[in-house]
Amino acid sequence: MQQFEERVRESFRRQAFMATLGADVAIEKKGQVEIRFPFHRSLTQQNDFVHAGAITGILDSACGYAALSVAPDNHDVLSVEFKVNLLAPAVGDEFCARAQVKRAGKTLIVCAADAYARKNGQEKMVATMLATIMALKHRG
Amino acid sequence: MQQFEERVRESFRRQAFMATLGADVAIEKKGQVEIRFPFHRSLTQQNDFVHAGAITGILDSACGYAALSVAPDNHDVLSVEFKVNLLAPAVGDEFCARAQVKRAGKTLIVCAADAYARKNGQEKMVATMLATIMALKHRG
Amino acid sequence: MQQFEERVRESFRRQAFMATLGADVAIEKKGQVEIRFPFHRSLTQQNDFVHAGAITGILDSACGYAALSVAPDNHDVLSVEFKVNLLAPAVGDEFCARAQVKRAGKTLIVCAADAYARKNGQEKMVATMLATIMALKHRG
Amino acid sequence: MQQFEERVRESFRRQAFMATLGADVAIEKKGQVEIRFPFHRSLTQQNDFVHAGAITGILDSACGYAALSVAPDNHDVLSVEFKVNLLAPAVGDEFCARAQVKRAGKTLIVCAADAYARKNGQEKMVATMLATIMALKHRG
Repeated sequence: MQQFEERVRESFRRQAFMATLGADVAIEKKGQVEIRFPFHRSLTQQNDFVHAGAITGILDSACGYAALSVAPDNHDVLSVEFKVNLLAPAVGDEFCARAQVKRAGKTLIVCAADAYARKNGQEKMVATMLATIMALKHRG
Repeated sequence: MQQFEERVRESFRRQAFMATLGADVAIEKKGQVEIRFPFHRSLTQQNDFVHAGAITGILDSACGYAALSVAPDNHDVLSVEFKVNLLAPAVGDEFCARAQVKRAGKTLIVCAADAYARKNGQEKMVATMLATIMALKHRG
Repeated sequence: MQQFEERVRESFRRQAFMATLGADVAIEKKGQVEIRFPFHRSLTQQNDFVHAGAITGILDSACGYAALSVAPDNHDVLSVEFKVNLLAPAVGDEFCARAQVKRAGKTLIVCAADAYARKNGQEKMVATMLATIMALKHRG
Repeated sequence: MQQFEERVRESFRRQAFMATLGADVAIEKKGQVEIRFPFHRSLTQQNDFVHAGAITGILDSACGYAALSVAPDNHDVLSVEFKVNLLAPAVGDEFCARAQVKRAGKTLIVCAADAYARKNGQEKMVATMLATIMALKHRG
């Protein structure tokens, strides 16, 4: 396992919210991260679709970890802002967010991510994010 | 209780994700809604701040219900897209999102919402959302 | 020339702001449009970079025309909202925006576009847009 | 004239694009800036509304100058990203954008701005922006 992969996995384990979502992470390669969770009723909104907050949760974390995988050593990352378009109802057995770095500056890293619902072996794009992430030197 | 308040409360009860967050809703008046939840470790990210997905969850639902409260009868609402700026770490005992309708068109409703963290009786703005919501006639 | 190409060209000719920018349009194929303009001092901001308003102008129009090329006959398009990330200073001899349709719904069409600066034969991405566009039936 | 007002006016004069729009600036107070321009046919899109690129131009510059007015001495500002919701057709005799600082951090400043069209002495909100701006130390 490479160093950037270790950094991502170590941080992911400390995200209690990811456990609440039942989520798992996969690091495809430097700058490319996937997070997925299975459907669970506790994550739904009033129409039994998965709530935008849960989908945004994995989109945001996937973008953050894509950014972390390219950030300099001794740096942590912080989401500055993101925009999400909800493209279709989040209906399915499993949901995943795939993020990639669009541009890595010295301080700011811009990432794009798409979220997919899987149902009966078919994938459908349900949301897309454009995010700005800040790289910050560790304190202490 | 007025009719729009009933519509909001009835829909909120069916949102399992709001129960997962431990959230409660208050309808200030037509077009203005507040959702809050107490801190819980299950909602945190790697630095023990509340995760952006949880904060986005109440911002999005608050915007949706603000929109629902002004939508015509027999209409449901659907989030089209939103942008969130994360202004400060979400650290505190309680978190709330306050949404208001910025412009209500026939099909699209634009809402703005701010999220606050409360700690030692003090409130601090931690995030702000600008959202587009669609009003759709009920089917059936 | 195909019908969707004609619709785009006819509308583009009526955009006085595109003439003010010195811009030209190219329709790659259905759902994919490029707009470009040469550098001109009248479009700059205080550091002699091209102003974000000019870059946003071609990103927005490129997204609108990508949407128009897939919209049903007898429909016009209207930008609902967009988000732009400015990735690098807009410095160069020529600037272009390339848009494509990300998802076409019945009422709303989501497009993504990237803007590039060309200098000494090299292209650099300077901005990226994620946009929501509405298809509206012609009146009258 | 106070120092922050001088900084804004001096920078505004160097923005050729603002002259192209026929725009003027007013600094209300620290952290609050207004930019306006009269209607001109050269700024229109295919329906004779003012183009989103022109409206975005003054929204972006108003946010930038609101940020500049609160930035530390010896700092310049740079737009990182913005989101614009287009609320109504930009039809009128005059257009203005009013920006204010929402949160000023050490590196990033978040601003909100609304754009209005004036017609027959009446004002109508036509767009709203949420923007992230970076403060950078002058080089040299």
